[in-house]
Amino acid sequence: SMRYIVFVLVASSAIVCAYGLLASPYNPPYYWEKAKRARYAIHYNSWGVIGTISTQPKILGFPFTNIISYSDGPDSNSTGTPYFYVMNGDPSVQDLAKNNSMSFSVSEMEPGYCMIHKYDAEDPRCARITIIGHFEKVTSPSENKFAIATLFKKHPEMQTWPAGHDFFTAKIRINFVWILDHFGGSSFIKAADYYAADPKFATYRYQGSK
Amino acid sequence: SMRYIVFVLVASSAIVCAYGLLASPYNPPYYWEKAKRARYAIHYNSWGVIGTISTQPKILGFPFTNIISYSDGPDSNSTGTPYFYVMNGDPSVQDLAKNNSMSFSVSEMEPGYCMIHKYDAEDPRCARITIIGHFEKVTSPSENKFAIATLFKKHPEMQTWPAGHDFFTAKIRINFVWILDHFGGSSFIKAADYYAADPKFATYRYQGSK
Repeated sequence: SMRYIVFVLVASSAIVCAYGLLASPYNPPYYWEKAKRARYAIHYNSWGVIGTISTQPKILGFPFTNIISYSDGPDSNSTGTPYFYVMNGDPSVQDLAKNNSMSFSVSEMEPGYCMIHKYDAEDPRCARITIIGHFEKVTSPSENKFAIATLFKKHPEMQTWPAGHDFFTAKIRINFVWILDHFGGSSFIKAADYYAADPKFATYRYQGSK
Repeated sequence: SMRYIVFVLVASSAIVCAYGLLASPYNPPYYWEKAKRARYAIHYNSWGVIGTISTQPKILGFPFTNIISYSDGPDSNSTGTPYFYVMNGDPSVQDLAKNNSMSFSVSEMEPGYCMIHKYDAEDPRCARITIIGHFEKVTSPSENKFAIATLFKKHPEMQTWPAGHDFFTAKIRINFVWILDHFGGSSFIKAADYYAADPKFATYRYQGSK
């Protein structure tokens, strides 16, 4: 009957939709592999929040949070270093010209991971990674070429941004990586340990749910 | 035939899935209605990034960004003030005990709005809202009751958080609201103008795409 056909269509749609969500490729390392998990989250996500000390007259000296896109490299060459494509007109970049101390956070809310597992954004199992360090313009031509290529691949819209705005590539010189990815409190990861961790993307991404 | 039935099932599922995304209820006010758009984004989203000046020895004096859940009230009584449910053990809260200056950002990436419209997170049309002000514990019993009720409704997991961790409600005393929601640069909105804006949730949410 017609009602049966409608039922089958709706039920099959719901199943395919749910499967699409559950089959999300975001499948991070275990919580005790903190350096790997931080590398994984930084590689997989595409945007985060940058924190600076404000130089804007209305909010002088306040911490100032702002949204920023980034890439740490392609899957075949994830570097762990977030590269940005920014312009001097951006208030965060203006702040960094005066004081290049910065913070940069991503959340596992972004890829839908926490929603699927029913973790609130403030649940420690919905991992948060914050990189603390110094902002640096990319000056090496080969590094700039790498940064541009990976940024434009991950953020195709960037290729269309107006040349007159003088966009340039920049990165974080990492002091520490802070992570909260389970109950029991947060941790600092030394930059050397963060860089040494093998994020094993192909393995983690498709190994099924834990 | 069987192949035709499978085709119809898959095609209908794809259409229903796509419609589910496109029919997203996140439908903000126009970009020139900046105070309304800020109120809308703050009301609709459920998590953001808090920025503080760090008191942690390893990163003393650096800006420190962290993830936080919030609610500004139910649909029937959106206040514009983000309420938080936090504990003293949180490093951001420790920072704020020393210096209560804070920043708090949300992005229209969170509700899927930017993805649907193919706006990169750094595209100005993918609006970013940052509230700058001071952190305050909620001390009034009636305000605390309101904050708890709206937080627990929006973040049901909070009801299960351990009593021994001494969670409490807090809010931002707003100095300024900063918004970037279109080409042409960002704006500051005075707290009074932000609070005066009528976010007209019911109207905006279901008026269809623009």
